[in-house]
Amino acid sequence: MKLKEPKTVLRVSSFIINMSGTAGQVIRCKAAVAWEAGKPLVIEEVEVAPPQKNEVRLKILFTSLCHTDVYFWEAKVTANSYLIHACGLHLIVESVGEGVTDLQPGDHVLPVFTGECKECPHCHSEESNMCDLLRINTDRGVMINDGQSRFSIKGKPIYHFVGTSTFSEYTVTHVGCVAKINPAAPLDKVCVLSCGISTGFGATVNVAKPKKGQTVAIFGLGAVGLAAAEGARVSGASRIIGVDLNPSRFNEAKKFGVTEFVNPKDYDKPVQQVIAEMTNGGVDRSVECTGSVQAMISAFECVHDGWGVAVLVGVPNKDDAFKTHPMNLLNERTLKGTFFGNYKPRSDLPSVVEKYMNKEMELEKFITHAVPFSEINKAFDLMLSGESIRCIIRMDG
Amino acid sequence: MKLKEPKTVLRVSSFIINMSGTAGQVIRCKAAVAWEAGKPLVIEEVEVAPPQKNEVRLKILFTSLCHTDVYFWEAKVTANSYLIHACGLHLIVESVGEGVTDLQPGDHVLPVFTGECKECPHCHSEESNMCDLLRINTDRGVMINDGQSRFSIKGKPIYHFVGTSTFSEYTVTHVGCVAKINPAAPLDKVCVLSCGISTGFGATVNVAKPKKGQTVAIFGLGAVGLAAAEGARVSGASRIIGVDLNPSRFNEAKKFGVTEFVNPKDYDKPVQQVIAEMTNGGVDRSVECTGSVQAMISAFECVHDGWGVAVLVGVPNKDDAFKTHPMNLLNERTLKGTFFGNYKPRSDLPSVVEKYMNKEMELEKFITHAVPFSEINKAFDLMLSGESIRCIIRMDG
Ligand SMILES: NC(=O)c1ccc[n+]([C@@H]2O[C@H](COP(=O)([O-])OP(=O)(O)OC[C@H]3O[C@@H](n4cnc5c(N)ncnc54)[C@H](O)[C@@H]3O)[C@@H](O)[C@H]2O)c1
Ligand SMILES: NC(=O)c1ccc[n+]([C@@H]2O[C@H](COP(=O)([O-])OP(=O)(O)OC[C@H]3O[C@@H](n4cnc5c(N)ncnc54)[C@H](O)[C@@H]3O)[C@@H](O)[C@H]2O)c1
Ligand SMILES: [Zn+2]
Ligand SMILES: [Zn+2]
Ligand SMILES: [Zn+2]
Ligand SMILES: [Zn+2]
Repeated sequence: MKLKEPKTVLRVSSFIINMSGTAGQVIRCKAAVAWEAGKPLVIEEVEVAPPQKNEVRLKILFTSLCHTDVYFWEAKVTANSYLIHACGLHLIVESVGEGVTDLQPGDHVLPVFTGECKECPHCHSEESNMCDLLRINTDRGVMINDGQSRFSIKGKPIYHFVGTSTFSEYTVTHVGCVAKINPAAPLDKVCVLSCGISTGFGATVNVAKPKKGQTVAIFGLGAVGLAAAEGARVSGASRIIGVDLNPSRFNEAKKFGVTEFVNPKDYDKPVQQVIAEMTNGGVDRSVECTGSVQAMISAFECVHDGWGVAVLVGVPNKDDAFKTHPMNLLNERTLKGTFFGNYKPRSDLPSVVEKYMNKEMELEKFITHAVPFSEINKAFDLMLSGESIRCIIRMDG
Repeated sequence: MKLKEPKTVLRVSSFIINMSGTAGQVIRCKAAVAWEAGKPLVIEEVEVAPPQKNEVRLKILFTSLCHTDVYFWEAKVTANSYLIHACGLHLIVESVGEGVTDLQPGDHVLPVFTGECKECPHCHSEESNMCDLLRINTDRGVMINDGQSRFSIKGKPIYHFVGTSTFSEYTVTHVGCVAKINPAAPLDKVCVLSCGISTGFGATVNVAKPKKGQTVAIFGLGAVGLAAAEGARVSGASRIIGVDLNPSRFNEAKKFGVTEFVNPKDYDKPVQQVIAEMTNGGVDRSVECTGSVQAMISAFECVHDGWGVAVLVGVPNKDDAFKTHPMNLLNERTLKGTFFGNYKPRSDLPSVVEKYMNKEMELEKFITHAVPFSEINKAFDLMLSGESIRCIIRMDG
């Protein structure tokens, strides 16, 4: 996700860490730090303080990166600050703080950039996952408990990012941002479920909810859109129409069940009209995964009247306006937006992992590359060039 | 509803008609005809031809009028043309045409301005009531079967309007525009269910679907909005916030369960902000029944993030644009539109009548006035002045 500018950003990763007897103590680990925007990461040593009330300290085994990381790394890293995002990693609980009862050392978990306190109106609602306490906040670089950071370099605090702060071999998070999962799940696969893959998959299966045999249009064939297509495939969609301005996305997309491709640049008329003509009046469902407001409008206007549902996932620019004729709504179309695929991290993510375990969804095809940790800068290059969907980073490498 | 300009418009009503032995024959009946826009109706004699394939001829007992009638009467009546709308009337089948198997002479029915063919994709969809064949069409003044009218004056055809053409003591409609209802239902009450009351009630119970204890905002407290409020009351809403620019609507609205009132004119800030402040972040559901695009935007932006659902009912102007920041959608709000409260006329209306019979909804409070047919022009005055919600016209009067 593209996010608001954080006060500080941090990218840390460690090579070798103390494996036991560390509870209650500060852990030192090496880390790859981005000192300057867009410059290669540099190895540093960081201190990770023990978890406090409602916190857990986690050992990272596999990590990855998504566009959020690249976005902040390219544009927003300021001197003496670091980016740590939660995308695509798999962790084992090292120790837990006061008041944490549902996690124990050794548990396998996925951390998420948003959280679930289980106590606010959103957490109590069946429909929302936008927890009042732990909802993504790119401006808060500290733990909620005491307003302090758990990271430091030579005693100087380093700030957290989006609740999880995980490009370190150890990290501390609020217990509400951590989902306990099946320990039998393969660590190097399910790690991709902590960010964009769940976002896109959930947008389709939880929000758009296509019925078996229905037609689905997916706008944007990046990782999020391909995951939305996977959701449509799993739901038994009869046609999955992929829409992207970049024709190179089309080949990859076939693996994700996309049956037809439309490049808006190939037509003189609006893409919503092209799709309506292809589908006798419109698709049954559409999922927008681009961040372009024009694509959002097209995604809405290309659904069939009477029953069509359009779901927006992409994060728009600050000044964008969604604009349509109200008759498009009155003709019984539905327009919705979603955040992290409407999954509640703690309550719902474990069952997504089970979906993979039961072969109801595929994850392998999202993982196009893997690098050892020592080559983390290569993962950035692969993301920047658009070559990778997800590149796994092995922390032991 | 405000609708597109029809080719022709017709308003007919009869005084005395032949009660039996009329099947297969032309029926002559007296009618109140609007020869000139905005001028009082004049009694004329019309001929009503027998029903053809998939048609029924109906005897009218009670009728009413809604804003559609007034709108077309005021603005759109051209010389030698007549307005016949379907709003609020109760009929008995006089005879049926070829191929009609589910209606018999003597059945009690409600005619609706939209229809249900039971064969098109919309009729097969659980979600839509926008029948491809019989969806409201204000331009078609003839029967679908043969492209002819069943009405005439001295042999000169008079054209139908919105599928039902019912301000006559006899009318002919497509069988798909007629709902067979419980013959025990009081004719002078359930007749109001054929138009705006079902529209508003259904918008709440079928589309907005508030849960027990939730808060609901209703924009526009005309007949449609009051029916939407009745839907919220029946659903067990804890607070029903009525919004109208006309403060005289507020007193009446209390009978419909409206607990609080907001007049946007009383505030410097946008009404969506006023409502968000009243409700700790927004209402759970909102239903817009004004036709004002500004109210549509406010109705959407006043629902709570995470789970709020806004439903649009009002018919906008041709050049209106619905405009909002896409983040309002991404924060998990839902925006929908509905037509005739998402009721399928034939499949669903009978059960709405049963809701009234079982005292699950009230209709009496919508019927503020009644006049004999000879005073039909008074019903127009009451509607124009905003004094009446619904005025029943007794055809035997
Ligand atoms: N990555 C995440 O974890 C995450 C989570 C939630 C939301 N999002 C948002 O979802 C969106 C997609 O994320 P991604 O990682 O897949 O991005 P991506 O950049 O890999 O993919 C976006 C795709 O959209 C295409 N596109 C852009 N404008 C278009 C248009 N007008 N019409 C058709 N196609 C168009 C691009 O060519 C590209 O292939 C972004 O807005 C992101 O902020 C991402
Ligand atoms: N009557 C029907 O059968 C039917 C069916 C479907 C849809 N509709 C549509 O529903 C809408 C309501 O119908 P009605 O018969 O109740 O109309 P009405 O004119 O009786 O009521 C509309 C109310 O909305 C209020 N209003 C107007 N602009 C407003 C604003 N910006 N903010 C707050 N309040 C505002 C008016 O003061 C009025 O009280 C119309 O657009 C109509 O076309 C009607
Ligand atoms: Zn991410
Ligand atoms: Zn919460
Ligand atoms: Zn009407
Ligand atoms: Zn139909």
